[in-house]
Amino acid sequence: MNQFDFNIVSSDCGARAGVLAAPHGDIETPCFMPVGTRATVKTLSPRDLAEAGAQVVLANAYHLFFRPGTATVASLGGLHAFMSWDGPLLTDSGGYQVFSLGPAARVFAGGVEFKSVYDGARHFFTPELSVRVQEQLGADIIMCLDECPPAQAGPGELQRAVQRTAAWAARCRKEQQRQDQMLMGIVQGGTNEKLRRESAERILEIGFGGYAIGGLSVGEERSAMLEALVLTAGLLPADRPRYFMGLGDPAGILAAISAGVDMFDCVLPTRLARHGSAFTASGRLNLRGAVFARQDGPLDAGCRCYACQNFSRAYIRHLVTQKELLGLQLLSLHNVTFLLDLTRKARQAIIQGRFQDFMKSAPAEY
Amino acid sequence: MNQFDFNIVSSDCGARAGVLAAPHGDIETPCFMPVGTRATVKTLSPRDLAEAGAQVVLANAYHLFFRPGTATVASLGGLHAFMSWDGPLLTDSGGYQVFSLGPAARVFAGGVEFKSVYDGARHFFTPELSVRVQEQLGADIIMCLDECPPAQAGPGELQRAVQRTAAWAARCRKEQQRQDQMLMGIVQGGTNEKLRRESAERILEIGFGGYAIGGLSVGEERSAMLEALVLTAGLLPADRPRYFMGLGDPAGILAAISAGVDMFDCVLPTRLARHGSAFTASGRLNLRGAVFARQDGPLDAGCRCYACQNFSRAYIRHLVTQKELLGLQLLSLHNVTFLLDLTRKARQAIIQGRFQDFMKSAPAEY
Repeated sequence: MNQFDFNIVSSDCGARAGVLAAPHGDIETPCFMPVGTRATVKTLSPRDLAEAGAQVVLANAYHLFFRPGTATVASLGGLHAFMSWDGPLLTDSGGYQVFSLGPAARVFAGGVEFKSVYDGARHFFTPELSVRVQEQLGADIIMCLDECPPAQAGPGELQRAVQRTAAWAARCRKEQQRQDQMLMGIVQGGTNEKLRRESAERILEIGFGGYAIGGLSVGEERSAMLEALVLTAGLLPADRPRYFMGLGDPAGILAAISAGVDMFDCVLPTRLARHGSAFTASGRLNLRGAVFARQDGPLDAGCRCYACQNFSRAYIRHLVTQKELLGLQLLSLHNVTFLLDLTRKARQAIIQGRFQDFMKSAPAEY
Repeated sequence: MNQFDFNIVSSDCGARAGVLAAPHGDIETPCFMPVGTRATVKTLSPRDLAEAGAQVVLANAYHLFFRPGTATVASLGGLHAFMSWDGPLLTDSGGYQVFSLGPAARVFAGGVEFKSVYDGARHFFTPELSVRVQEQLGADIIMCLDECPPAQAGPGELQRAVQRTAAWAARCRKEQQRQDQMLMGIVQGGTNEKLRRESAERILEIGFGGYAIGGLSVGEERSAMLEALVLTAGLLPADRPRYFMGLGDPAGILAAISAGVDMFDCVLPTRLARHGSAFTASGRLNLRGAVFARQDGPLDAGCRCYACQNFSRAYIRHLVTQKELLGLQLLSLHNVTFLLDLTRKARQAIIQGRFQDFMKSAPAEY
């Protein structure tokens, strides 16, 4: 395969199983990508991630720009060498921070003025700067700077975000120098059908190696999210990868795979771990519960992860309640493995033409 | 070998290389034993410990008595099953908490009244209770309840501690039911020669499978500590293991090995990690230092650990300064490996009859 070829191996009722040829290795889709915001997936080492089955790891250009600094990462051989992950990497552009930082990010036509979360200093992020930073970091896949408004944004704000996102996408495309990185465009438009269509049209017009569905999972109703997701996925070219940004709940991931989405990322598995919670085939468990104090079984009987193969719920509860960090590590490893296995099993089901059955057999408690 | 046989394989100028046959595996001495106070060595999994070369892991009967409770651990199959460590384990008796908890521990002739660090409730720890708790936990090696006074204790307090420690040791010996656990006696007496001799005499009179040197590393001058250590080690029978409690600095460990000590434990490697520090062959590094921001080399060029084989000082500094827990894990793994390798190399040197040279070549910066 040539660089960034995307072969659809199999499709089944709209769901697709593919292979994306990234410079640091092939990515089998659908895939879940663990998030290592500051060049580390919280509490997990690269070998933990490899064991869990991670193929692509995310990092965040905004955070790495500030700490340790783009030039520092570059001087140490780039992001792969820095974090000791030799598989594919994807960097987010900083666009999500427009949403997540709220008033600390002011959006202008030219770019975003960020107040650094580290020292309060103001920095102006342009689409061009975002691409240059991501080129210096050197991930396999890089993202356009976009404007991601919150769910409660009015039509005017949404419309403006669609326009800026398109204008910035064109500037990113123009700025890109490195040919060994795949630049992805991002479709915005909230849950508004007209704006989604307009955004998709404008981003497709520019043309990218892959397309991301942004601006969802930002506080909107679930039904509206699913509707916008299905709509947007259907607007994207069938022959390029589709990436739904920021979705980490198992049921949501399965719904998006049904709609033809190929890539997912979310901080949910590690965030849940910090709250003492575990994904299981029969719903989430919160290990702080006294009910687990003497339970000898694993977090999830069907799970192959190191935590489930070696430790009881009672022990993990002990670690969590005593604030012992091994508890956080074991829950993180389990939750990340759980989502990686979910997408891997979905892929197998698609290839074997039984994706509908797989969906039906998915626990309602997801 | 029969259970708890202790074979001295080789000795060299007072230093000894031995093998202690514990129920869960042979222990090659001299050895460093990582401390898992609450049934977990902070941030390290059992497989991390095995990879680092740990043979014995410590846990603390005082802490496990309160959380999760002795009966809970027993109902889950005992401490080995609970923490998923199938090698040898050693539990401390709670005696150290007499020192470390200060006013929250009141010592009486009958035992220690502890104010629980968990909920403030008062509990009376007798020598008998300590043995029963440790029998329920099921470690390979268990310790007598002793009174460990602080370095500033006056002669009267030291004398009283020697007497109580001896009286309690006799009660522990009498209480012991399980024959598959080795009970160790503890010699007290601070840095007072007369009291050390008296304590050793009384503990030896009772007779134990092994002997610990307690009451040092509690704030005394280093020279006084070394003097008391050499004195006490010389008073203990040559054919049984000698355990120096609570010593974790590399130079101190080497000095104690010279004096014929076989076993060591300390929280220092994981505590240093929490402070961002690493042992190296040329002294300790504090990774918070700006000087490490772009250093591409490993923590310690001679180290075989996962952290040193895969990550730069710059990356670990990034993790530490950003409070990313992977930094703490990598430093803990490195520091524990460092002490395990130190004792392993000392053992090889003893066997090869070059222990003096090994001592001479040890970096002064230790």
